[in-house]
Formats: sequence, structure tokens, C-alpha cells
Amino acid sequence: MNETIELMQAHKSTRSYTEQPVSEQMLNEIIHAAWRSPSSINAQEISVVVVRDPVRRARISEIAGGQPWIAQAPVFIVVIVDFNKTRIGVEKAGYTQTIQESMEGFGVAAVDAGIVLGNLMTAARAQGLGMVPIGGIRRDPQALIDLLELPPFTFPLVGMCMGHAAVDMPLKPRLDISTFRHNERYNATSYAAAVDTYDEEIMKYWQQLGRSDGLPWSTNVGNVFKSLYFPEVRPVAAKQGLLNDK
Amino acid sequence: MNETIELMQAHKSTRSYTEQPVSEQMLNEIIHAAWRSPSSINAQEISVVVVRDPVRRARISEIAGGQPWIAQAPVFIVVIVDFNKTRIGVEKAGYTQTIQESMEGFGVAAVDAGIVLGNLMTAARAQGLGMVPIGGIRRDPQALIDLLELPPFTFPLVGMCMGHAAVDMPLKPRLDISTFRHNERYNATSYAAAVDTYDEEIMKYWQQLGRSDGLPWSTNVGNVFKSLYFPEVRPVAAKQGLLNDK
Repeated sequence: MNETIELMQAHKSTRSYTEQPVSEQMLNEIIHAAWRSPSSINAQEISVVVVRDPVRRARISEIAGGQPWIAQAPVFIVVIVDFNKTRIGVEKAGYTQTIQESMEGFGVAAVDAGIVLGNLMTAARAQGLGMVPIGGIRRDPQALIDLLELPPFTFPLVGMCMGHAAVDMPLKPRLDISTFRHNERYNATSYAAAVDTYDEEIMKYWQQLGRSDGLPWSTNVGNVFKSLYFPEVRPVAAKQGLLNDK
Repeated sequence: MNETIELMQAHKSTRSYTEQPVSEQMLNEIIHAAWRSPSSINAQEISVVVVRDPVRRARISEIAGGQPWIAQAPVFIVVIVDFNKTRIGVEKAGYTQTIQESMEGFGVAAVDAGIVLGNLMTAARAQGLGMVPIGGIRRDPQALIDLLELPPFTFPLVGMCMGHAAVDMPLKPRLDISTFRHNERYNATSYAAAVDTYDEEIMKYWQQLGRSDGLPWSTNVGNVFKSLYFPEVRPVAAKQGLLNDK
């Protein structure tokens, strides 16, 4: 099979890293791959902030609710919605930018941030590195905005730890592919049975890892999705000018 | 250089396809790569709908405002925010799902949709296929919801054409990488000069393609981002239960 396809089909996260640093050359290749990501209307409204400084990584670990791998991994990358960049183009063209006030604008920027994050992940793994995406930076977005000195019309959406993996993990199972791929039209008839099967499979996965705190998928998703999860996202984004209300 | 990194650094879109079909085996490998994408809290709240039927592709081409490549490419894939899938897990756990009412929930789903889309793009290109991401399906989301029979708590966020490329395009230039990569903190001092340089570079790119309708980057972004672009996103998403207002 094709090497790239094989790599993607074996996607896994790493939460334990050695002390070996990531070379600047390796990091450059990864960033270059993500920089070539496409964006809606070629707006290029995504930027990244590379954080190597251990004091700053320790601070981000706290902001994310105490995730030790952020302090441990030698590189942390924050993916930024950057409507400040596009604002310069819009004003040069003689207009006032308003896209950041719409759900369309936020959705487009979040999709494009996901493309960049996905390319960072695949490129890191292609270099033989381990990585794990981090949503926990949205727990206290204002603290991260202050730390990274982010101006109006920007927002820190998601992050990624990266480094040399200290352990090799087994593949985490997924919900059956019939719940992912639909043909011609949406058809959820397989969903309920697939959830039951998956709850059992993921408990076997936790046992395999010796994780006695592992929960069935439905319990874990229920615990989080019964709530708004990170309620600071909306007010802090609005303060940054990402109103998201039109 | 690593084959995967090289592929990603040479990312390009294709808007002209031959009549050669995409084999089911090739499509399976691509979908399988995207299925392995990570998701926030392992929620797996993304699904895809594969559309091969030419009558349905012609309809989607209309919905997207008349993009002929959607009718021409043998495969179109719609990436769906699928909080209907997670709802089954949340209810099994004895809770009521509310995440879809928050900006956090929409942001997470859009990021995870971007990861899936990015992996579909890279996997398609790894198979030697051409592809182009399509945001235009959000021009009339209700029409696509009707066509794909999408239930409450789902939303069609973005799509992708895929097939054998009829032409090989040159790489499209990007804004200077100094506007993409920041170190330790955000620093926009290079932005204004980079926009001026890029406006000139992209005009040379249009000339190279013989495209007399090509615009400078700042004019193109200004024309779109001065507006809300696809104003139907918010009301139709709200009707689907994705309130996005908390």
C-alpha cells in the first residue's frame, strides 16, 4: 500500500515524550507542509505560534487544565484563527471586514484550522515524531491570548504537542466505519448497534492499556456533551471581535 | 525528503477531470484513512456522504452556485457535522445532549471536519488523484440537507470533488511563510509588506495560467470578507438544532 495512506490509517496520539529535542530542520519541513494547506477562497486566515520555551509550555499546560504532556513535549504549536491577517488585505482593497461577525466566518476558519492541524499531525508522524492534538487551550482562551499577545480578530483555536515518542501505543478502535461512510444519502440505521459494540471494544482497549479509569464511549461523550464544555469560548471570541452572531 | 512531506508541500487543487471512474478499492482506502482521523474527546462527530450518482452531483453543482467540476468529477464527498451520532451515545448514558447549542461545540465539530477533509485530500492525492475542496455547498445548506436526507443535529459543512486530473496545474503561491509561522508570540510586523508582495506574485500566477479575470489577493479577500458571504448558514444550522448561541 502507498506509504502516505498507510501512515494515515495508522494514526495514533502520543502523550509521553523523550527529552530528545526536535531539530529546527525537522520542524521547518512540518511547518512548510502545513503552510501549503488550502483555505476557503485562498484567504489564508490561519497562523501558527511555535512554542519551545519550557516556561511558556508549563504555563500552557496549566491553562489547559494541567495536561503534563504539554510541559514535557519539546514543541507545542498553537493554531490561530487570524482574521487580523485578512483584515490588512480587506482594508487595502478599501473595504471594512465583517466576515468575522458571522457563523459562516467562524465555521470556515475552524475548518481551515482543522486542515492545518491535520497536516501538522500527518507531517510530524511522517518525520517519525509523536504528537497529540490539544483542545484544552480553549478552557481559558483569555489566558492564552495574553501569553501569545494575540491582537483583535484572532483566536487560539487548537494546539498540538510534538516530540519523540517515549512509548508506542496500540491503535485506538473507532466506531464501525458504517457510522462514518454514507452512500448517496444519510442512513443512521447501523448507529445504535455500532455504539453498543464500540462501548465493549473501547473497554477492552482500556484494559489492554491497564487504564482502570477508562469509560465506555457513550459515558465519556455523555459526560462532556451534556454541557457546553468550554463556556469561555463564546465571550472571549466576542471580545476579540469574532462575534459569530450573524 | 520523506514522500508524505513532499506530497503535502506540493498541495494543489484540480478543477478539470477525465471520464475515468475512481475504483471502489481506491475510494475505500481514502475513506479508511479519513475514518482514522482523531476527534476532540474521541467524539467521532463527523460523517461523510459519498455521492457518485451523476444526477445528484449535477444538483449539488447547482446548489453550490454552478460549479461545473462538481458535475464533472466522478466522486463528490460531503463532510457532515454529525451530532446525531453522538446524541445516541449521550442518551444511552442517560443525559440530554446540549453541546450543539454552543460556539465551542460548533468550533470543535468544524475543526474535526477540517481534519477529515484534510485527510481525504491528502489520501486522494497519495493515490494519484486530483481533488478540490468545496465550500460552496453552504450557499444553500437547506437544499443539500433535503437532498442528502440529513436529520436534526447534523449539518453539511464542506465538500470535495475527486477524480483523475485532466490537467496538471502549477503550484499556487502563498503569502510569505513569515505571516504563517510565529515563534513564542504573535508578531505581525511582516504582514503589510507580505500582502503587497503577494498581490504582485498572484497576478503573475494568473498571467501564467492565462486567466484574465484573476484579482490581487487583497481585492479577492476584500470582495468576499466585506460581507457575511453565506448568510444561510446560521438560520439553517439553528433549524437543525445547532444553535451556536451559547
